Amino acid sequence: MLKRRRKLKKHSPVGSRPGLLQVPEGALPSRIRLVSFDADSCEEVEAASLEQVGAALAAGERLWVDVRGLADLEILQGVAELFRIHPLALEDVMNVPQRPKQVAYPENHQIVLQMLVPNHIDRFEQLSLFVGEGWVVTYQEQYDDDFDGVRERLRGGGGRLRTAGSGYLAYALLDAVVDAYFPHLHTVQGLLEEVEMAVFDEAHGGILERMHELRGTLLELRRAAWPQREVVQSLLRGESKFFGEEIQPYLRDIADHAIEILDQIESARDSVSNLTHIHLSLVGQRTNDVIRWLTVMASIFIPLTFLVGVYGMNFEHMPELGWRWSYPVLWTAMIALAACLFLFFARRGWLRDD
Amino acid sequence: MLKRRRKLKKHSPVGSRPGLLQVPEGALPSRIRLVSFDADSCEEVEAASLEQVGAALAAGERLWVDVRGLADLEILQGVAELFRIHPLALEDVMNVPQRPKQVAYPENHQIVLQMLVPNHIDRFEQLSLFVGEGWVVTYQEQYDDDFDGVRERLRGGGGRLRTAGSGYLAYALLDAVVDAYFPHLHTVQGLLEEVEMAVFDEAHGGILERMHELRGTLLELRRAAWPQREVVQSLLRGESKFFGEEIQPYLRDIADHAIEILDQIESARDSVSNLTHIHLSLVGQRTNDVIRWLTVMASIFIPLTFLVGVYGMNFEHMPELGWRWSYPVLWTAMIALAACLFLFFARRGWLRDD
Amino acid sequence: MLKRRRKLKKHSPVGSRPGLLQVPEGALPSRIRLVSFDADSCEEVEAASLEQVGAALAAGERLWVDVRGLADLEILQGVAELFRIHPLALEDVMNVPQRPKQVAYPENHQIVLQMLVPNHIDRFEQLSLFVGEGWVVTYQEQYDDDFDGVRERLRGGGGRLRTAGSGYLAYALLDAVVDAYFPHLHTVQGLLEEVEMAVFDEAHGGILERMHELRGTLLELRRAAWPQREVVQSLLRGESKFFGEEIQPYLRDIADHAIEILDQIESARDSVSNLTHIHLSLVGQRTNDVIRWLTVMASIFIPLTFLVGVYGMNFEHMPELGWRWSYPVLWTAMIALAACLFLFFARRGWLRDD
Amino acid sequence: MLKRRRKLKKHSPVGSRPGLLQVPEGALPSRIRLVSFDADSCEEVEAASLEQVGAALAAGERLWVDVRGLADLEILQGVAELFRIHPLALEDVMNVPQRPKQVAYPENHQIVLQMLVPNHIDRFEQLSLFVGEGWVVTYQEQYDDDFDGVRERLRGGGGRLRTAGSGYLAYALLDAVVDAYFPHLHTVQGLLEEVEMAVFDEAHGGILERMHELRGTLLELRRAAWPQREVVQSLLRGESKFFGEEIQPYLRDIADHAIEILDQIESARDSVSNLTHIHLSLVGQRTNDVIRWLTVMASIFIPLTFLVGVYGMNFEHMPELGWRWSYPVLWTAMIALAACLFLFFARRGWLRDD
Amino acid sequence: MLKRRRKLKKHSPVGSRPGLLQVPEGALPSRIRLVSFDADSCEEVEAASLEQVGAALAAGERLWVDVRGLADLEILQGVAELFRIHPLALEDVMNVPQRPKQVAYPENHQIVLQMLVPNHIDRFEQLSLFVGEGWVVTYQEQYDDDFDGVRERLRGGGGRLRTAGSGYLAYALLDAVVDAYFPHLHTVQGLLEEVEMAVFDEAHGGILERMHELRGTLLELRRAAWPQREVVQSLLRGESKFFGEEIQPYLRDIADHAIEILDQIESARDSVSNLTHIHLSLVGQRTNDVIRWLTVMASIFIPLTFLVGVYGMNFEHMPELGWRWSYPVLWTAMIALAACLFLFFARRGWLRDD
Repeated sequence: MLKRRRKLKKHSPVGSRPGLLQVPEGALPSRIRLVSFDADSCEEVEAASLEQVGAALAAGERLWVDVRGLADLEILQGVAELFRIHPLALEDVMNVPQRPKQVAYPENHQIVLQMLVPNHIDRFEQLSLFVGEGWVVTYQEQYDDDFDGVRERLRGGGGRLRTAGSGYLAYALLDAVVDAYFPHLHTVQGLLEEVEMAVFDEAHGGILERMHELRGTLLELRRAAWPQREVVQSLLRGESKFFGEEIQPYLRDIADHAIEILDQIESARDSVSNLTHIHLSLVGQRTNDVIRWLTVMASIFIPLTFLVGVYGMNFEHMPELGWRWSYPVLWTAMIALAACLFLFFARRGWLRDD
Repeated sequence: MLKRRRKLKKHSPVGSRPGLLQVPEGALPSRIRLVSFDADSCEEVEAASLEQVGAALAAGERLWVDVRGLADLEILQGVAELFRIHPLALEDVMNVPQRPKQVAYPENHQIVLQMLVPNHIDRFEQLSLFVGEGWVVTYQEQYDDDFDGVRERLRGGGGRLRTAGSGYLAYALLDAVVDAYFPHLHTVQGLLEEVEMAVFDEAHGGILERMHELRGTLLELRRAAWPQREVVQSLLRGESKFFGEEIQPYLRDIADHAIEILDQIESARDSVSNLTHIHLSLVGQRTNDVIRWLTVMASIFIPLTFLVGVYGMNFEHMPELGWRWSYPVLWTAMIALAACLFLFFARRGWLRDD
Repeated sequence: MLKRRRKLKKHSPVGSRPGLLQVPEGALPSRIRLVSFDADSCEEVEAASLEQVGAALAAGERLWVDVRGLADLEILQGVAELFRIHPLALEDVMNVPQRPKQVAYPENHQIVLQMLVPNHIDRFEQLSLFVGEGWVVTYQEQYDDDFDGVRERLRGGGGRLRTAGSGYLAYALLDAVVDAYFPHLHTVQGLLEEVEMAVFDEAHGGILERMHELRGTLLELRRAAWPQREVVQSLLRGESKFFGEEIQPYLRDIADHAIEILDQIESARDSVSNLTHIHLSLVGQRTNDVIRWLTVMASIFIPLTFLVGVYGMNFEHMPELGWRWSYPVLWTAMIALAACLFLFFARRGWLRDD
Repeated sequence: MLKRRRKLKKHSPVGSRPGLLQVPEGALPSRIRLVSFDADSCEEVEAASLEQVGAALAAGERLWVDVRGLADLEILQGVAELFRIHPLALEDVMNVPQRPKQVAYPENHQIVLQMLVPNHIDRFEQLSLFVGEGWVVTYQEQYDDDFDGVRERLRGGGGRLRTAGSGYLAYALLDAVVDAYFPHLHTVQGLLEEVEMAVFDEAHGGILERMHELRGTLLELRRAAWPQREVVQSLLRGESKFFGEEIQPYLRDIADHAIEILDQIESARDSVSNLTHIHLSLVGQRTNDVIRWLTVMASIFIPLTFLVGVYGMNFEHMPELGWRWSYPVLWTAMIALAACLFLFFARRGWLRDD
Repeated sequence: MLKRRRKLKKHSPVGSRPGLLQVPEGALPSRIRLVSFDADSCEEVEAASLEQVGAALAAGERLWVDVRGLADLEILQGVAELFRIHPLALEDVMNVPQRPKQVAYPENHQIVLQMLVPNHIDRFEQLSLFVGEGWVVTYQEQYDDDFDGVRERLRGGGGRLRTAGSGYLAYALLDAVVDAYFPHLHTVQGLLEEVEMAVFDEAHGGILERMHELRGTLLELRRAAWPQREVVQSLLRGESKFFGEEIQPYLRDIADHAIEILDQIESARDSVSNLTHIHLSLVGQRTNDVIRWLTVMASIFIPLTFLVGVYGMNFEHMPELGWRWSYPVLWTAMIALAACLFLFFARRGWLRDD
């Protein structure tokens, strides 16, 4: 049985007003995790209210507002209004999955990426990241993510994470999203090698299904990784004021990783596609083996069976039947004939196993 | 039986005058639906006359003139003259189907798109949209369309549809055309998964026809969606004065959708193409299964049949025939031989079902 | 038997002087058709002499000099000298077939296109068109062409053909050349659908030849249509003074047609290429059908034949031979065995026709 | 046996000094052919010495120094020094084969092309051409070339070859190199058609080898022709002072030819690639034919053989054996059965030859 | 058994601080080889300490600091600090393998390449090269490299290596890395020809594995060679102050080599891919050969066996059994029938070996 594909996006009804918000099916209740920090301290509120966020913003603190779960419209809109997020951008947040993209608005910068859900081979959740002067807002579909390392560094306070601008925090989050592809690709590579082994060892039932699924997985990864690369490269072209000169080397680093991810995906795709051809050739070769065996068996015994049939006939006038040595002579002749055919086939190479 | 392809375009006779108008075969009678609106009110006339349109235009009202059906030349030309539509542009209106395109004329902007006809898998009708100062004119081939949502919003009066310029109304219509591809692609995706299941379950007759048709459908969709993306992206490059600064974020939104549509089409094409290879491999594998069975059966019984043939011979001097235990001994030998061959084939793995 | 391909171009000897003129093999005698016109009148001379052409040019009339047949060097060169056509351009006229191209010379503009010969599926003749101030010169290989519509319009005098500049006449001729591809593609589309039907109905002998030929035809069309598109688009980029601002919308119209022609060719190529794969799968499927039948027949009768062989043996001590009910019992057993095997194959699905 | 591929380039040892010169394996002794000419005269020296070249250069004559054979380092370096050829450029001369390229040095312009060796299907020799103020230097690997036409024109003195600048002579040589591809492609086209015929007539042994070789040949040609086109197009972009305004139309002519060569190569590649698929389909179809025949033969005779086996049994109690009409009745039944099966197969279309 | 692929890169933990250094698995102990030179002298220290390097740098000597082995963090960081290498660049040094790239930092220029490990078919080690004012620092994974020629030239003192700037030394090293691909490709070409021979001679077991491995090798080479070309071309675009005007011709030379390497890889890939198709066709052809033999054998003997079966029946009333000449007549008939069938098959061409 084939695995179910990625759920198709549920679009707003055709012709509806732009910016119309629809809670996606199966969305989780929204929770705000508020991290406010400066060079000296870092405070985390696990389940913050809109008021707390508003207060922190008004107090001019550096903020990371992490909204997880897309079920509660008021919370999502409340945060969006606090940080002046454009209605179309908020529509992108809800309308999952979006193709990765980045848009510069006058007051903030929107970045949409597809994060790999930890411990799944090809499930994605959408990260919508907004970066403004002094703050970063992230919207995620799931509660799990790959940002524990970043949180740890914020708490620890080493490095530049607490002192550099909001662009640097955004960079750290993007970096975590992109780097999470590598262990994933490692797993995919493992699957690919298993399929490779299976193809060459023997064609067990189901190998074509596995190949087809692997190809589907790679297609999904590529559809997420390709525009992700574009996003990072546009940021690199310095189109946003929040990613200044000093963040460029770091962004270039992400861009290199994004390209390498695509490289690995393309290599894997090429291998799978090649395996399809190899498998076809191997099936053909095995059929050839089987048919050669059949041909050799049939070709040797069919003439012999004919011969014994001849002497099974009941004609009255068959002189050979009465001769003394007919029977042993026939056996000798039959063995000789079989041997000749056997040698003939050996010469043609039909007895060799490919 | 293969489905009939899209009707080929009937071009004007070779060498004929540019701007020569020909009513397309099977065109429906033309009807003008006139919507005049301002911030406060919205009036609809279901079957307006040319005079009514002229009067409304002269009155300086905001207008959406929706001409449906291409059979009546006077009506089409009448509207074109009122709104100073270029003869070549009007030729495009009649000469269906046109490749999607957009052309900026000094006095208005022409956009040609292929709309999906509701409830058909790959039938298109052409939308020719003209936007000028304060008005939008649309020409459609069919009476059905996907604009009910837009009309509802015009009547309702919420949002910016009645207050923003004519470019915003044009955007709303384009958005409806582009978004209508998504439910369509959903259906195509469903067909694809059915074919996928059918391929892996068992090759029922007709599966290749269905694959070929699906591929044809995807080709049609791609031929409509590819230039559609170009059209939206040219609009985005700000080449038209009717799509000003404030409409850019909305156009960018359409552009994202147009790219995603192409993405999905390409993914589906890749899957179908892969399925063709998989199907070939599966057919080969099944042939291999069948031939292995034949070979095993034949290889076991052919030598046995030879042996019983030997003792069916009528030679007078065959000592074995008279021996007491010949018959049971032969049975034993034959069973042993069959067993050996059986084991041999089991070892080679030819008894396993792939 | 495969159809003969397009005659290969006979190039001038390697290392020969540029501008060296060679009459192409099988060229027709040259005839000049002179059309001189102004806003009020239009005069045609079917077989004009060089002197007549020179006189008309000197008289400052608007001219269309249509030279058909490339056999008479003096005529071709005489016309070229009158209109100051560059020797390299004249070499292109003679050196058929040329890849479509356009070159701006200081005094005139050269356009080379491949016209489809009416009533042939993939035969081309070369049109070399030169446009200068007040005149158009065309060189054709054949007497037949698709310009009757243009001539009619010149005679009729309606439209702008007699009043607009020479660029407009050139446009009308280009338009006729490009539009002539559409009925052609219609025919090719018909052939494609025939092949499609043939592939799915049953593989008649010759289907692969027809596919291969169709593919060859499409390749030829593409080789002519691809550079043709480039030619029109370069003209559109306003690189020539003879194709001014007012002709741009008309050229854009041709460009749209040229792109659509390529689109249709590519779609057809994709379909043919897909059909090749489908055909391979179908052949495999049919082989599978045949082999399944063979296997079922052989598997059922081979054991039975063995059994009757057993009781055809002549051993003296075969107790069964003397038993009263041996014969009917054996029949029953054989029928039961056959039925079991039959059921077994039915279960495996080998009796179903794919 | 497969043909040996093009000798791989022997590179200088890794890490060696740039400009290090190594005589290529199997190089021929170097000979200088000196042609000095002006508008009125043309003098040729078949085996000139370095001194003669130096003297002619000092005398300010127009020169074409044609060095053939790369075995004598002193001669090659001597000429290079006289004409101030850069050491890296000289390394390119020796390091055959080089990818075609063109480099503008301050004092001269280097052009490297791969010339087809006359009368070979895919052997190349390298032409390194240097053009400076008033002179052209060419280095060739072999003594044979395609420049006889150019020499003839130099001697004859007609045309502009003796009067125009050194760029015009260089153009004439380039033109000869590029045009020499056409007769070659003609031969390849012939080979392709032979293979085409062979594929469709019947699969003789060796057809796949021939296809593979043809494909290899086309790959070689493409590897030479692709950068050749780039070279000519860079020259066309007017990057060199030696190819001035008045030579542009001539270079454009070469560029057209270079593109057409690539066009023809790509078409041929497409055809070969298609033939591979066709061949596979044809082999499958023939296997199908053979197996159908086997199945029909076996299916008709296997049941009959079973029947006659039944009445060959030796049971004592087989009432039919004694009946008067058993034998003719059985024959009738068998013939009827065979006829039924025959009709059945005819209905299925298995008796038709594809 | 398939060969193990290239070890996958071990990335830093997701979300970790940029610039975090991790010693790669299996790294060798680090050793510094210090070469200080000027126009007159060249001194080498095989195992230099950080102090020696610092002293030499302070003394303003021209330096080549070659760090081999990545196991000792202090040494790597010590060198990096001395030469002000950016932490992200140092992370690239450790994080092997990196995609080849080049980054211009204000104080130095980073170049990352994948060097082929001598005597391995597709193992790479990473070279990280930094060039600054007067010095070159290289980091290598292994002790072996292809730089012996460069070292020799430094010691010898001929050429410009000791006198030109640090860019020239960097060029010499890059040149050695790129040129080392050629002997490698030579080996790969040899493997390809072996596989080619094997495919056409006879399909030995394992040929598909070898093809698949070769394809994998070529993919690896391409993944290293493609960005390598980009690196050299960016340098050529003069983006770095350390690669000035006078080094451009040398860089252009490397760029030509890099393109040729890619050209050869692509040609080889095309050949392998073609061989896959050829192999499939050959397997099909061989199956066809075998089945034809089976069909001929079976078709000739099956009717004969039926005939002898007929006369083996035990009916009492079979008049032929008693006739005098039945037996020889039957033999004659059978021989005639066999001969007819034989001729029939010969006519169809089924007796010919393809």
